[in-house]
Amino acid sequence: MVVFLNGKLMPAAEAMVPVNDRGFMYGDGLFETTRIVNGRPFRLAQHLERMVRGADYLKIRMPFTPKEIQKFTAQLVEANAMPDAVLRVTLTRGAGERGYSPSAAGEPTLVMSLHPLPKLPEEGPLQWSMITSSYHIPASGAISSFKTTSKILNVFARIEASERGADEALLLNTNGEVAETAGGNIFWVYQNTICTVPTGRGVLPGITRAVVLEICQALGLETNKRVIKPQHLRNAEGIFITQSVLGIVPVVAFDGEHVVPSPLVDQIATAYNDVLQRE
Amino acid sequence: MVVFLNGKLMPAAEAMVPVNDRGFMYGDGLFETTRIVNGRPFRLAQHLERMVRGADYLKIRMPFTPKEIQKFTAQLVEANAMPDAVLRVTLTRGAGERGYSPSAAGEPTLVMSLHPLPKLPEEGPLQWSMITSSYHIPASGAISSFKTTSKILNVFARIEASERGADEALLLNTNGEVAETAGGNIFWVYQNTICTVPTGRGVLPGITRAVVLEICQALGLETNKRVIKPQHLRNAEGIFITQSVLGIVPVVAFDGEHVVPSPLVDQIATAYNDVLQRE
Repeated sequence: MVVFLNGKLMPAAEAMVPVNDRGFMYGDGLFETTRIVNGRPFRLAQHLERMVRGADYLKIRMPFTPKEIQKFTAQLVEANAMPDAVLRVTLTRGAGERGYSPSAAGEPTLVMSLHPLPKLPEEGPLQWSMITSSYHIPASGAISSFKTTSKILNVFARIEASERGADEALLLNTNGEVAETAGGNIFWVYQNTICTVPTGRGVLPGITRAVVLEICQALGLETNKRVIKPQHLRNAEGIFITQSVLGIVPVVAFDGEHVVPSPLVDQIATAYNDVLQRE
Repeated sequence: MVVFLNGKLMPAAEAMVPVNDRGFMYGDGLFETTRIVNGRPFRLAQHLERMVRGADYLKIRMPFTPKEIQKFTAQLVEANAMPDAVLRVTLTRGAGERGYSPSAAGEPTLVMSLHPLPKLPEEGPLQWSMITSSYHIPASGAISSFKTTSKILNVFARIEASERGADEALLLNTNGEVAETAGGNIFWVYQNTICTVPTGRGVLPGITRAVVLEICQALGLETNKRVIKPQHLRNAEGIFITQSVLGIVPVVAFDGEHVVPSPLVDQIATAYNDVLQRE
């Protein structure tokens, strides 16, 4: 396996960062994850657009243009002969002094790596059970619009899910409203309408979320963005999670209760896979 | 400069971690910072106790005992001939697979490094101006009791402070109550009583905060732990910040308004420096 580190291809075992990289010290960075399908990255331009916006907000310099990162991606896929994989792009503020103030940071760090596709269940479709995390994410503040590398809450929510025998955790915001899941955005079906929560209020504007909203429009499915409390999900006629790596993941149980399966979720999942293969 | 990495002393330039260290990928780690004074670490036992509690909560294995870390500290101070410095101890979940779920993580990473003392103002005493950050931290959840490496909010709050011409940012919690600052705990003087906020509600139980409460008791100063809104700070007769690196930092301006200086703050600062030198 070879990895891109600051514009150079190198064996993964040699891809190291100094212990005073602010990404390592303080989670002072951003990342994006997307699928490589048939040798091509899916919606990488949108992912990089989000990274550029985040870097601008956090005042981290982008050491390469999105165009260059697109070019490196092609080289990485070729060098690893991995036409179907997961791409991770990580940008940090780079090596710097101890202390939160980033004034003394030097050159940013950019890492690009490929990862095998996650193992899917050997039998039957991919589907998740979900619990409600005990953690609440702040309902305000622009930082939640960006995918930073400060992700201890998401890690902890997954530990919580696993301890309660579930696959995924639903995160509420500090208003007690449904925000997102540890690893994706949330959708539900209600009276044949495909619903999700609006962005803002702690919700990351997911790239896959946007693709699903496009697909619904193309399929002529009604959509609705609503702020809801978690108990509202109990009336849902189908729940699913969207994320860049796995695409559409149906939720079959929520806080121990069975979730009604919806044929609309299957229809969207099929259309999503078509888009993924076609682009 | 030499650094301890996973139990080995090595030149700082060689102290590197793989780009798939979960500390780098997700801020999936904990850290502690303390002063080395006259060759001895200040209250390191309490810092390590907090780290052990955090590691237990986040299910990260401590690769060394607090006793071993104490021993490594002495070696590090000697090897670098830095009897007056800042010690940082960083623990991460170590190299692992992409994805929030930490199940596939391997051996944890432990880094110990010394850093020069921060530069103090050339003239006059150390004192800070403070603004209120636009960011709110969650008022609930045990993770805020631990010092994780997911610190993008603290970094951003410092950027905000600097853009508004200030040194430090006050962080409110999502209830709109005073919680802490980007880099420390907050105290204020009101009617000759030394006040701070209770821990919990988003507030890190600072080690220096605890030392100050001890000092107040020894000096016979009345203390009070109160939940307050930020406007209450406008009536304060003295405000100060406590943190491990700088100790007691008086606040001279808050959101652009002058803060009354208090002789009690000087008294506590003097007593704190005595404790620091004595222990």
